[in-house]
Amino acid sequence: MEITILKKLLSIKMYKSPVLKKITFVMLAIFIATLTTSAVQHPGLFLTPNGVKEIKASLGKYPLFDKSYNELKAIADKALTEQIEVPVPKDGGGGYTHEKHKNNYYEMNAAGTLYQLTGNVKYAQFVLDMLLKYAQIYPTLDLHPVIKSEARGKLFWQTLNDAVWLVHTANAYDCVYNFISEQDRQFIEKNLFRPMAEFLSNGNPSNYATFNKMHNHGTWSMAAVGMIGYAMGDKELVAKALYGSNKDGKTGFIRQLDVLFSPDGYFTEGPYYQRYSILPFMTFAQIIQNQQPELNIFKYRDGILQKAVNTVLQCAYNGEFFYLNDALYKTYETQEIVYAVDIAYKNNPANKQLLDIAHQQGSFIVSDEGLATAKAVYAEKIQPFELKSVLLRDGQNGDEGGIGILRSGNDNKQTCLTLKATSHGLSHGHYDKLSIVLYDNGNCILPDYGAVRFLNIEPKNGGGYTKENTSWGMQTIAHNTVTVDNQSDFKGNFKMSSQFHSDINYLDCKNPEAQVVSAVEHNAYKGVILNRTLALIHHPAFEFPVVIDIFKVNSDSTHNLDFPFYYNGQMVMTDINYQKNTNELKALGTKNGYQHLWLEASGKTNKPTASFTWVTGNRFYSITTLANADNQFMMTRIGAGDPDFNLRNTPCFMVRQQNTANHTFVSVIELHGLYDLTREVTSGFESNVANIELSKDDENFTAAKIKTKNNLQFLFITVNKDFGEFKNRTLTVEGKIITFTGNYYFVEINN
Amino acid sequence: MEITILKKLLSIKMYKSPVLKKITFVMLAIFIATLTTSAVQHPGLFLTPNGVKEIKASLGKYPLFDKSYNELKAIADKALTEQIEVPVPKDGGGGYTHEKHKNNYYEMNAAGTLYQLTGNVKYAQFVLDMLLKYAQIYPTLDLHPVIKSEARGKLFWQTLNDAVWLVHTANAYDCVYNFISEQDRQFIEKNLFRPMAEFLSNGNPSNYATFNKMHNHGTWSMAAVGMIGYAMGDKELVAKALYGSNKDGKTGFIRQLDVLFSPDGYFTEGPYYQRYSILPFMTFAQIIQNQQPELNIFKYRDGILQKAVNTVLQCAYNGEFFYLNDALYKTYETQEIVYAVDIAYKNNPANKQLLDIAHQQGSFIVSDEGLATAKAVYAEKIQPFELKSVLLRDGQNGDEGGIGILRSGNDNKQTCLTLKATSHGLSHGHYDKLSIVLYDNGNCILPDYGAVRFLNIEPKNGGGYTKENTSWGMQTIAHNTVTVDNQSDFKGNFKMSSQFHSDINYLDCKNPEAQVVSAVEHNAYKGVILNRTLALIHHPAFEFPVVIDIFKVNSDSTHNLDFPFYYNGQMVMTDINYQKNTNELKALGTKNGYQHLWLEASGKTNKPTASFTWVTGNRFYSITTLANADNQFMMTRIGAGDPDFNLRNTPCFMVRQQNTANHTFVSVIELHGLYDLTREVTSGFESNVANIELSKDDENFTAAKIKTKNNLQFLFITVNKDFGEFKNRTLTVEGKIITFTGNYYFVEINN
Repeated sequence: MEITILKKLLSIKMYKSPVLKKITFVMLAIFIATLTTSAVQHPGLFLTPNGVKEIKASLGKYPLFDKSYNELKAIADKALTEQIEVPVPKDGGGGYTHEKHKNNYYEMNAAGTLYQLTGNVKYAQFVLDMLLKYAQIYPTLDLHPVIKSEARGKLFWQTLNDAVWLVHTANAYDCVYNFISEQDRQFIEKNLFRPMAEFLSNGNPSNYATFNKMHNHGTWSMAAVGMIGYAMGDKELVAKALYGSNKDGKTGFIRQLDVLFSPDGYFTEGPYYQRYSILPFMTFAQIIQNQQPELNIFKYRDGILQKAVNTVLQCAYNGEFFYLNDALYKTYETQEIVYAVDIAYKNNPANKQLLDIAHQQGSFIVSDEGLATAKAVYAEKIQPFELKSVLLRDGQNGDEGGIGILRSGNDNKQTCLTLKATSHGLSHGHYDKLSIVLYDNGNCILPDYGAVRFLNIEPKNGGGYTKENTSWGMQTIAHNTVTVDNQSDFKGNFKMSSQFHSDINYLDCKNPEAQVVSAVEHNAYKGVILNRTLALIHHPAFEFPVVIDIFKVNSDSTHNLDFPFYYNGQMVMTDINYQKNTNELKALGTKNGYQHLWLEASGKTNKPTASFTWVTGNRFYSITTLANADNQFMMTRIGAGDPDFNLRNTPCFMVRQQNTANHTFVSVIELHGLYDLTREVTSGFESNVANIELSKDDENFTAAKIKTKNNLQFLFITVNKDFGEFKNRTLTVEGKIITFTGNYYFVEINN
Repeated sequence: MEITILKKLLSIKMYKSPVLKKITFVMLAIFIATLTTSAVQHPGLFLTPNGVKEIKASLGKYPLFDKSYNELKAIADKALTEQIEVPVPKDGGGGYTHEKHKNNYYEMNAAGTLYQLTGNVKYAQFVLDMLLKYAQIYPTLDLHPVIKSEARGKLFWQTLNDAVWLVHTANAYDCVYNFISEQDRQFIEKNLFRPMAEFLSNGNPSNYATFNKMHNHGTWSMAAVGMIGYAMGDKELVAKALYGSNKDGKTGFIRQLDVLFSPDGYFTEGPYYQRYSILPFMTFAQIIQNQQPELNIFKYRDGILQKAVNTVLQCAYNGEFFYLNDALYKTYETQEIVYAVDIAYKNNPANKQLLDIAHQQGSFIVSDEGLATAKAVYAEKIQPFELKSVLLRDGQNGDEGGIGILRSGNDNKQTCLTLKATSHGLSHGHYDKLSIVLYDNGNCILPDYGAVRFLNIEPKNGGGYTKENTSWGMQTIAHNTVTVDNQSDFKGNFKMSSQFHSDINYLDCKNPEAQVVSAVEHNAYKGVILNRTLALIHHPAFEFPVVIDIFKVNSDSTHNLDFPFYYNGQMVMTDINYQKNTNELKALGTKNGYQHLWLEASGKTNKPTASFTWVTGNRFYSITTLANADNQFMMTRIGAGDPDFNLRNTPCFMVRQQNTANHTFVSVIELHGLYDLTREVTSGFESNVANIELSKDDENFTAAKIKTKNNLQFLFITVNKDFGEFKNRTLTVEGKIITFTGNYYFVEINN
C-alpha cells in the first residue's frame, strides 16, 4: 500500500522542482520506513530465494563465476577444518587478533553463502558456532587496548573495522537466519548484534558523530547498522541508517548521497578512498534495493551511485587507481570494485562497458548481482570501457574545483595527464594544489608519492600512516607543483585548507590534437595567485604526445618558488652545467618536507631554456623549461630525514626561481624515442624542442612559442580570465593580430 | 664422393678414441673443404629451394609464423618506400650513422628473404641497389673515426658490428644472388664483400687476432667471413672460417666449439654473452649443415651446440637471463634466442621442451628452421621446458669451477638461487667469487648489479660501458659475497684473476627438501681461503623455502671482512640497534667500489643473531645471521661517486667483521608471509628464526643449528673437504655421534 502512495505522490505534476520532489521523497520514505512492519524474508540481503535457485542452476556454466564460487567455497571448507577461535582483541593492524577477526568475518560470509547454495548444514552450523562465541565474548569487551584512533572499536583498534566486520557478518547471519533456533537468535542478537549496532551508532560521542558524519567512516557505520537492521527485521535501526540518528534525513545514508559525491560522482577524498567507500555505498544500496525497492535507490539524485562507479573507474591508469591524496596501490581487481561493478551492472544492464571491467577482473560476487554480470559477460557483446578525457568536478554542487584528466590514445599504453585542483579532500587530503601526474606507455612517468604507509605491516607504525605521511607525503614540495617560500599550501593548516578550493578555469578536450585543462588557486598562499594551464598536444609533427605546461605565479610582493618534477626512471642527459655531490649529501632543508630531500646535484644555465632527459621503460622523456640566469636547477632524491626506512627514493628535477613577484614557468614535457634492450634498438633519445619563448603574458592571455629542432614552430595561447568556449578573442602577439574563439589557441606557424 | 670417404673413415672401428676421431674428422674436413669445388646453389644459406616452397605453401596456416613473416614483410615494405641511404660512417653506438647501417642490414635481410618468398623483384632490386651503394662507398672508407675500440671497424666503431652487418647481408646476398647480373656480382664482390672479408680476417693485426681468437668476437668474424664465403662459393674463405687463417684447425670455428664451451655447454663469459654469441654459433652451424652436411656439425663434440642452447636457457629466471658479469636486461624473446631455439629444434626435433620456449617467444625465423619449429608448435605435444637445479661447469674440460643453480618449485614463481664459482670470464668478467643471487615469487630478491651501461644511448658514454662499470659493477663489494680488507678479488687485477678459478666442492640436488651447493676459492686473496655452502631447504615446517648460507673464511693472518646482501624492496624491520643518517650522508670509502656506497645507517647488536627484514612484491624476506659484539651492521645504498647519474640506487644490508683470521658467517635467508595490498591481507611479516648456533666448525665439518620461533630445531652439516657422495662420515656434534653418507646432512632434531 505504502508503495502505491509514494508512487502516486511522486507522479503528481506539482513536483516540478527537483528539490521539492527530493524533500517529499525523503519525508515519505521516513514515514514508510518507520511504519512498515512486514516480516523479513531470508535470505534477503545479498542473496534472494530466486537468486539462490538461479545460482544453483548456473554452476558449471560460467567458468569465471565458477572460479569465484570455488574460491569462496575453499574459504568456507578450510574454515570448517579449523578450530573456531574468537580471541580477546589485542593487536593493531597486521597483528594476530586483528587478522583473526578479519579472517573470521570472511569465513562466516563464505560459509553463510555456501549454506544457501549447497544446503549443507555444516556451513550453517559453523556460522552459528562462531556467532555464539562472539555473542559470549562481546558483552565482556571494553574498548580495544590499542590507542591509536579517536574512534576505538571493540574487536579492532578502530570502529571502522568493527563496522566492516558487521557488514560481512550481517550477510552471513541473513544466510543462516532460518537455520538458527529462535532461542539462539535471541541470544546472538541480544548479546552481539544489538549492542554492536548501538555501539557503532551511539556507543559514545565519537561513534555517534561518525555514524552521523558525512565521511566514508560514516558510510560503513550506516551500512553495518542498516544491514544488521534488515537482517533482524529491525525497522528502527534501518531508519537510523537511512536517515540518521534522529531519523530526520539531515544525516544518514540518503543524505550522504546528496553530500559526499559531486554531481559528477566524484568523492572528495579522492580515488583511493572512493574505491574504499564504494563498497559500503553499493552494497548497502543493493540491499536497500532488495528490501525497499520502492526507494529506487539507484535512480536517486539522477543515478548518483552509477555515476560514482563510472567516476572511480575513470580515476585509473591501466586499471591502477591514481595515487592522489593518501593513496596506496589499488587496482580494478580489488573486492570493492568487483562489488561495485557487479552491482552497478545488475541495476543498469544497458551499460555494456561495465562488462569489460568485469571481464578484466575475472571474478564476481557470489550473489544475484555477480551471477547477472557473469552471465552477461558470456552472453552479451562486451563494449570496451572507455577511459576518456574528463573533468570530474569536486564539491556537493560541483563548484569546488575538480580533477582534470586528459588522455591520448585508446590502449593500455595511452598517455594520461591529471591536474588536481580540488578542495582539500577531508583528513586524507594533501597540500597539492595544481599538481600534475603523467602516465605514458604503461608506466607512471611523473608520479604522485601517494601515502607513506605500509598497510597492515605492524612494525611500520602498526600498519597505519607513518609519521612521514604528514612530514612528507602531504607536503606541497612532495608534489609536482609550485611551492612558494618553502612552505606548503595554507602553511599546512588543515582547517584553513578545508575552507577553500581551487577553481577549474576550463577543460576542453574536443580536439584530440590539443586537449587543454586550466585551473587557478587563490588561497593557498596569501597574496599569491597560482594559475596552471596544461595542453596535451598530439600533433602529427611529434611521434608521441607532448605536454605544454604554463604555470603562472602572480603576487604583489616577492617570493621564492620551487617547482619540482618527480620522475620515475634513470637520468640520461641535461644541458645544465651541474655539479653532482659525489662524496657527501645533505638534506635540502629542515621542514615542510624539504628535510626529506637529498640534494644530489645543482646547476645553472646560460641558455634560454634548460632541458632534462630521462628514460622510463622503453621510452625517453624530456622536460624543457624556459630558463634565466637566476634559475637554480636542482636534482634531488627522496630519502633524507627518514630514520625508519619508510620512504621510497624517487629522484626529482627541480627549478628554483627566487625573489620574484610575477613569474611564469613555461615547460614542454616531451615523450620521445625508443630504448629497446631486447632488440638493441635506440632512437630519438634527444629532445626535439629547440627553444621556448614566452611571446605574451598578461592578465588576459599567455602565449608560448615552441620551436623544434626540425624547424617547426607552434604557438599556444591560453586565456587567463573571462573563460567561455564561445567567446571571441583578439590579441596581438609579436605584432600580429590573432583572433580565435574559445579558451585556447594552438597552431603550427610558419616562419 | 668426399662425403662417402668421410663417412667411411669415421665408421671404421679403430676410432674408438674420441680424440683421435676428432682429429681425423678435422683433418678430413680440412682436406675436403680445400678441394671441393662444386657449384653453390642459391638460396643456400638460411633458405633452401625446398624451404622456400614449403614456406610459401604454409603461409596462412600457422598464425604465429605468419606474424613473424608479416613483421619481416613490414620491414621490407617500409624499406621500399624510403630513399636508400648509405652514409659515411661517423657516429658511435646509438648515433645516426650507426643506427642507419644497422637498419640497412635488417632491411636487406628482410627484402632478400621476401624476394625469395614472393618472387617480387622489387625486393631484389632494393637489395641490389643498396649493395651497389655499399660497394661504391666501401673502398673509400678508412677506419671508423670514433676511437673507442682497439678493433675499429669501417662501417661501425668496432669490427664486431661490421661482422654482424656481414652476417645479415650475406644472407640477403644469397637470396638475391641469382637475380643479380654477373657483372654486378663481380662489382659487389670485388669492392665490398672480398675486401670486407679480408678486412675482418686479416685487415690488420688486431682483426687477424680477433678472427683467430677464442672469443665471441672471433665467432662473429668467422661466421661473417664463412657465410659470405659460402654465398660467393669461395671455398678458401670458408676454410679459413672453419679452421682458422692457417687452415690448420688450431683456430677457427670448429676449434671454438672445442674451447669456448665447457662440456656442459657453458660459455665462460656468462649467460649475457652466451646469449649474444649463440646467434653466430647456431646461425653459422646451420649454414654449415646446409652446405656441408657431411660435417654433421650439430653432433660435433657430443652435440655441444645443442648443450649450449639448453645451458643458456637454464641461465634464466622467468625468461630473463641472469645478470652475471657484464649483463643487461635480456630475455628469451631476443632475436638470438629465437634463432637458437628454432635451429636447435630443427636439428633435434625429439626435444619437445624447446617448443615450449618457441611458444613463449611467439616468433620464428622466417626460414626453414623457423617453419619447422612453428609447424611443430601447432602439431606436436609441447613439453614444458624444465628449469632445474644444475651445476654448469666452467672451462674447456669442465674443471674450472662453475655456476651452481638451485631451484625449488616448478612455475614462474619458483625460488632460484645461484652461486658463481667460475673462472674470470674473459674481459666481461667480474671480481665476484662465490657471490650469490636469489630469485623468488617472480622477483629478483638478492640481485647482482650486472653491467653499468646504457646500450646505444649515446649521451651515456656513447652507449658503451660507463666508467662505473669498472669502478663499481666489476668490484667485489658490488656483489653478494665477502670482500676481504676492502679490496676486490685479486686486487682487481684482470691478468691475475684470469689465471685462476674457484672450485665447486659439490652440488647435490637429489633431495628436493634440501639441495646443497658448495664451492671454494683459494686465490682471490693471498693466504685466505673462502668457502661457501648454500642449502636451499624446503621443509614442510616452512611455508616457503629458506636458504642456509655458511661462508667460511680461513687465513693465517687477520683480515677485515665485509659481507653485503643487496636487496630489492623496502626495509621492514631489524633487531639491530641502528642509527640512520638523516641530515647528511657520506660515501663508505674512496676506492674499490666503496666510493659508490652511501652509508645510510649502522649499528650493533648484543643478541646472538641479527635479523633484517624487507618486503619485495607481496612477500617478506629476512636475513638472520650469527652475530657477535664486534660486528658492525651497515645499511648502504648505491649512488655515491656517480657524477653522471649512471647508477641505480639499490639498498644493501652489510655485515662487517674486522680483525679476524678465521671467521664463519652463518646466515638464514628466509622467504615468508604475505603482503597483499589488493586484498589488504598481511601475514607472517616476522622471521621465524629464533636462533642460530655454530655447533661445529673445523677443517672437516661445519655444523649449524637453526631454532625456529615455533620451537623446531634443524641441524645442517656440510663436509669441508674429501668430498664424495658415497663417502661415510662420522662426527660428534654437542656430544652426539652423527653418521651420514655424502657431502651434507640435514635433519629436524628433537630437543
